[in-house]
Amino acid sequence: MSHGDVDPELEMTSPHWMHREAESCPRMHTIWRLERWRSSMLLLIGLALCVLRAPGCSATDTDIALDAKATLNHRIQSLDLLVFVFLLALTVLTIWLFKHHRVSWLHETGLAVIYGLIVGAIIRYAGTSATLVHMQVEPQGVPTYSDKLPPDTLWFRYPVNQTNSTKLPEGIKTYAYVFRGQVHDVDENEIDLKATFDPEVFFNIILPPIIFYAGYSLKKKYFFRNLGAILTFAIVGTTLSAFLIGGFMYGCVKLMPNYLSSSFSFLDTLYFGALISPTDPLTILAIFNDLRVDVNLYALVLGESVLNDAVAIVLSGAIQNYGEHYSDTGEFETTAFLRSLSDFFSIFLLSLMIGAAMGCLTALMTKFTRVRDFPLLESALFVLMSYSTFLLAEATELTGVVAVLFCGICQAHYTYNNLSEDSRQRTKQIFELLNFLAENFIFSYIGVSMFTFPKHHFDAGFIITAFICAAIGRAVNVYPLSWLLNIRRKPKISSNFQHMLFFAGLRGAMSFALAIRNTVSDARQTMLTATSLIVIFTVVIQGGAANFLLNWLKIPVGVDDETEQLNNYQVHSVYNSMDNSHPQTSDGYLQDVEGGGVGRGKVRLSGGTDSNLDTSVDGPNGSLGGASSGRRRNSHEKAILARIWGNFDTKYMKPLLTHSRPTLLETLPVCCNPIARLLTTTQQLTQDGSEFRRVDSDSDICIDNDTGNGLSQDATGAVPGSGVGVGRRNSLSRMEILEHVQSPVSTRIRLLGFYGKKL
Amino acid sequence: MSHGDVDPELEMTSPHWMHREAESCPRMHTIWRLERWRSSMLLLIGLALCVLRAPGCSATDTDIALDAKATLNHRIQSLDLLVFVFLLALTVLTIWLFKHHRVSWLHETGLAVIYGLIVGAIIRYAGTSATLVHMQVEPQGVPTYSDKLPPDTLWFRYPVNQTNSTKLPEGIKTYAYVFRGQVHDVDENEIDLKATFDPEVFFNIILPPIIFYAGYSLKKKYFFRNLGAILTFAIVGTTLSAFLIGGFMYGCVKLMPNYLSSSFSFLDTLYFGALISPTDPLTILAIFNDLRVDVNLYALVLGESVLNDAVAIVLSGAIQNYGEHYSDTGEFETTAFLRSLSDFFSIFLLSLMIGAAMGCLTALMTKFTRVRDFPLLESALFVLMSYSTFLLAEATELTGVVAVLFCGICQAHYTYNNLSEDSRQRTKQIFELLNFLAENFIFSYIGVSMFTFPKHHFDAGFIITAFICAAIGRAVNVYPLSWLLNIRRKPKISSNFQHMLFFAGLRGAMSFALAIRNTVSDARQTMLTATSLIVIFTVVIQGGAANFLLNWLKIPVGVDDETEQLNNYQVHSVYNSMDNSHPQTSDGYLQDVEGGGVGRGKVRLSGGTDSNLDTSVDGPNGSLGGASSGRRRNSHEKAILARIWGNFDTKYMKPLLTHSRPTLLETLPVCCNPIARLLTTTQQLTQDGSEFRRVDSDSDICIDNDTGNGLSQDATGAVPGSGVGVGRRNSLSRMEILEHVQSPVSTRIRLLGFYGKKL
Repeated sequence: MSHGDVDPELEMTSPHWMHREAESCPRMHTIWRLERWRSSMLLLIGLALCVLRAPGCSATDTDIALDAKATLNHRIQSLDLLVFVFLLALTVLTIWLFKHHRVSWLHETGLAVIYGLIVGAIIRYAGTSATLVHMQVEPQGVPTYSDKLPPDTLWFRYPVNQTNSTKLPEGIKTYAYVFRGQVHDVDENEIDLKATFDPEVFFNIILPPIIFYAGYSLKKKYFFRNLGAILTFAIVGTTLSAFLIGGFMYGCVKLMPNYLSSSFSFLDTLYFGALISPTDPLTILAIFNDLRVDVNLYALVLGESVLNDAVAIVLSGAIQNYGEHYSDTGEFETTAFLRSLSDFFSIFLLSLMIGAAMGCLTALMTKFTRVRDFPLLESALFVLMSYSTFLLAEATELTGVVAVLFCGICQAHYTYNNLSEDSRQRTKQIFELLNFLAENFIFSYIGVSMFTFPKHHFDAGFIITAFICAAIGRAVNVYPLSWLLNIRRKPKISSNFQHMLFFAGLRGAMSFALAIRNTVSDARQTMLTATSLIVIFTVVIQGGAANFLLNWLKIPVGVDDETEQLNNYQVHSVYNSMDNSHPQTSDGYLQDVEGGGVGRGKVRLSGGTDSNLDTSVDGPNGSLGGASSGRRRNSHEKAILARIWGNFDTKYMKPLLTHSRPTLLETLPVCCNPIARLLTTTQQLTQDGSEFRRVDSDSDICIDNDTGNGLSQDATGAVPGSGVGVGRRNSLSRMEILEHVQSPVSTRIRLLGFYGKKL
Repeated sequence: MSHGDVDPELEMTSPHWMHREAESCPRMHTIWRLERWRSSMLLLIGLALCVLRAPGCSATDTDIALDAKATLNHRIQSLDLLVFVFLLALTVLTIWLFKHHRVSWLHETGLAVIYGLIVGAIIRYAGTSATLVHMQVEPQGVPTYSDKLPPDTLWFRYPVNQTNSTKLPEGIKTYAYVFRGQVHDVDENEIDLKATFDPEVFFNIILPPIIFYAGYSLKKKYFFRNLGAILTFAIVGTTLSAFLIGGFMYGCVKLMPNYLSSSFSFLDTLYFGALISPTDPLTILAIFNDLRVDVNLYALVLGESVLNDAVAIVLSGAIQNYGEHYSDTGEFETTAFLRSLSDFFSIFLLSLMIGAAMGCLTALMTKFTRVRDFPLLESALFVLMSYSTFLLAEATELTGVVAVLFCGICQAHYTYNNLSEDSRQRTKQIFELLNFLAENFIFSYIGVSMFTFPKHHFDAGFIITAFICAAIGRAVNVYPLSWLLNIRRKPKISSNFQHMLFFAGLRGAMSFALAIRNTVSDARQTMLTATSLIVIFTVVIQGGAANFLLNWLKIPVGVDDETEQLNNYQVHSVYNSMDNSHPQTSDGYLQDVEGGGVGRGKVRLSGGTDSNLDTSVDGPNGSLGGASSGRRRNSHEKAILARIWGNFDTKYMKPLLTHSRPTLLETLPVCCNPIARLLTTTQQLTQDGSEFRRVDSDSDICIDNDTGNGLSQDATGAVPGSGVGVGRRNSLSRMEILEHVQSPVSTRIRLLGFYGKKL
């Protein structure tokens, strides 16, 4: 197996082209790259074994040598993966240590990046790399190239030293070679190739659970309340930021004296703008969560960063398509632009629809079967349906990541309510763990790849410009749009909050994944380097400083879900929001009293956790008396979009997809009664308080009491006669919630709650 | 992209060689095969999209065509996977339906196989398959073949219609081709290649979670009590069965008139013996579990099938090595045989040790850190360490599956006790779900591949012989060994139990995975076909009939964990087993009274579930009065092996790796006190009753009260002074257990329990 004695004809070259191949066919699904490093390390590990194992085999045959090589490759791949797994285990232990000692200046993701950098440096400077042998070939006989495409496989006859039980002529064997991609720099020099994965791993394995979990754990209550702002920031803001960064970068690059100006096209910088625009939720939200930052700020940051990931991936795809398919010159063409635009919208909307449809399908399955009797089956069904959403979207050339996001939202909004208690916990825990592992893996990898990825292209000018542009892009996203939103938004986004939003614009997994997806040209390689550095900087430095900045900006932390501090407005009770617009039922009045008075912190318990509860009771932050003033504003406060959707949702979607009341029999016109009856389960009709409990016991993963209860009252107003049922439901679920509370404080609240109800 | 107009030079051939490649380099880690089918289905799905999406791109360029091809490949791969995911979802729904309607003649795995067969048939007869274009090539210039190995990659210059922004000369591009493997039948005809995965997927992705879960969920109490029998059946029995089947098959094959006799070597039939010998636990245990079959029978079947998987994989590896490396002729050679034998033992033992070491390392990590304060981190650590065991074993050329099995056993035995409640549940649930999905996937795949795998080789004679041999092999495994064991085994294995053990020998995942791993020769293909059929037959027919057979053999079902029926002996109480050999402490006496008297079903609650409890109280099957007679026999009953291990475990391993008492300070000699103090946590020293509760609250996943408590009493006898602590521990954990019980029946028991304690 010596590689030393090869002929000059069989040039020894580095395997750097192996990355090329994935770029020119970016969707190829090979999971682990064939690569080898650390053979020395393997030998060390194997040493102890060799003593015990039977001594060397008689490797005189090409077959055996090939077999040994394949075995070695497998071992090296295992070792590669092992390095990452150990790295993750180390990160986990250190995170624990930091949490244990309450270290706040460095967060988990930052830690993962730093460990990654260290391990990457060790791999780079400590290891030797094996090389791949390549050979230039030509067709046998007279070459005829009538097909436009190169052949899928090459068959290559190669003489071997000796053969072992084959039927082929002695000495010659035919080997198959599979097409991998174009070789770009035929005479590029040897570069180390160590510990790098196929970029498509990120899109097919790492990102989906992260994004699904983001959707599944979205706090929908605040998400819907801030829907307008979130959509503005995510869609308008991201697009704006992408184009602005693209344009600005293009200008800067063209001013640069060196080769960069020639290698960058406007499309390249625009792609850079699209990939650097999405913000990453992980680090900042971990901090926000630990500190219990104001919920509206939390919702804005989370909602925006989840949605702008989706926007960015579709936007970058559209830009790529523009360059590759629609435009011949790379310059602006109206039809090509319009095509890309239609691409952007159609892919986004279709992916959204597939995701939502699969989510609803799962909800239907769990509603109309009693699979909940077998939690294991139910959880399996849930996981399978969610995964098939991703596959379905990818199979139809849409964006799986976007589909999975909206599938997650639907699963949380509908299916979650149909699940058994066991499955709720199980699915939540599984995706939490998957998400944790996936995000730490990606951040470790960002660190490792800074040293091991062979195609980094450091250019100080570009990197500095990129940093500045990223900051400008974020500023353009936040400040003008906040100003615009503040015109008609009643709880205005204060300037301190705007600063925090600006500062919360960390870049993360999505930017990196988009950057590493295509590194075929110098321009793309420079972009990857700049992106990696921006990600590392923002995650480590900005993430670490977020704590101090929150202090400095005097943004309240440690607040209850309900003690909203947005712009110092006294906020309305959830139940107040429909008092002005609808006649009060007897129950509605009771809720109002509770909602506006002492019961405020209590009704919302279904959304809060126990610790939130304690805060709200012990330090209600002056919001106790403010409900009446808040009431007058509530019709403005609920976004029109959210209201329309919420109404439709409560009247038709929830009754169809979950066991909630009112049923479709009540909300659909009378003519549709037969269909409505078909779609209404007996459980839905006959359910009593104990059933309501299960349906309504939203944990922190699924908070929709605002839209849910609030709008079921809307529906109550429209459908006379069902008011009592809904009212009972509310009060029952409230009692149910109170039953969960065990501390003396909550006993006080429970009493207060009963008084409130008796009024 | 038309493939029709290729030159004769570019022969159109099927991609059937693509399976070859994985055989000749069997450890290659490519996850999804490049393959294509269902393009027509894709078109249908894409139809709706095409209406909305921008119309066709200007695909005049080779680049674009390649890109489109790569995209198509990705879509097809997604669709392939989607088919399986949908198949699994369908299986899940049908399993629910069957369970709902209490259908017992077909079990889940059988269902998965049948659905797989149906889908496989549809794919085979409904689809058209695309073909791969291949081209015969030769080296450029004067070929020199100085290296023994063929080159890793080929670079191939191919003229393209037009180029798009490259720096290469117009019209010529260089493409890279990667080595895949040897082409065996150069002129084989076209065969459909649809929906087949790389066999290595089974070994690297599907089997590890199944095997880990088997280890993690092993009921250790009964496992250790039957250790001798299990080891005999698993190691001696499997090896015996493999050699017997191998020899018998060889004889039969040589008698056959056709080509088979020439294509089969003795090593081939021996390999077949090794792969068909391991039994599969899934189906039969699902049935046993549902019916609550006698626990010792359960332990025998589970323990044997888990361990014989491990034996079979190592054995088959050793046989393969013998053929490939050690023996030149394929005939018997003493040195080669001895080498293979040493391979077998060294790989098995080293894998075992790596697995156990990693399990213990995890236990140490969880013991000496307070990572349990953060259950998410703890679960992540647990999963990462378990996975790294697999990778470590694979990287050191050992058997990852075996390592993972023993890692799972150690994790359950030690680490599980250190975990927080949340992590216990989470890890159990996660691996349960993974196991469920993996096993259903593999059985679906067995069904699908019967139709889609292109290299089945049906030979009626061989198949019939294989069926007979498989039955004979199982019989040889069960009956003589049972007879041998019964000589000195006190609760003898009755003949009905032997029949059931014989009948429980379903073949499953491991046999199939080993058979599909290597299908390079006709003999191997014939073996794969026979194995597939045996698996399908045993799982569907035997699995379905198990229920009736249990009835027919009058094997008691619906029994409590403790009501052991083995050979109709009245069984001893767990706590009785140490009464004769050790002086009774005051607490030991109480336990004895409880154990032998009314409290029997109660003490054991920690092992049983609620339903078991009810049975034991309502129908104690005459075992109530039998404890005293059982007591006399207990010193014989506990296998010597189990006792030595159990003693060592309780004295040194458990104190070192968990928070259990006695501590190392008490068990180690005085001279080692400083070290012992270092290895004993403060928690271990200062723990009171409430801590004991957590340490001892073994759920059904981790039952070691027998070895654990029983032998901690052994230790108590040896170390005076700690008896009170252990006694209190037992009684406390008992109370703790009782607190969980809520039904009226259990209230009765609770009272009984208190009376028992007051005696």
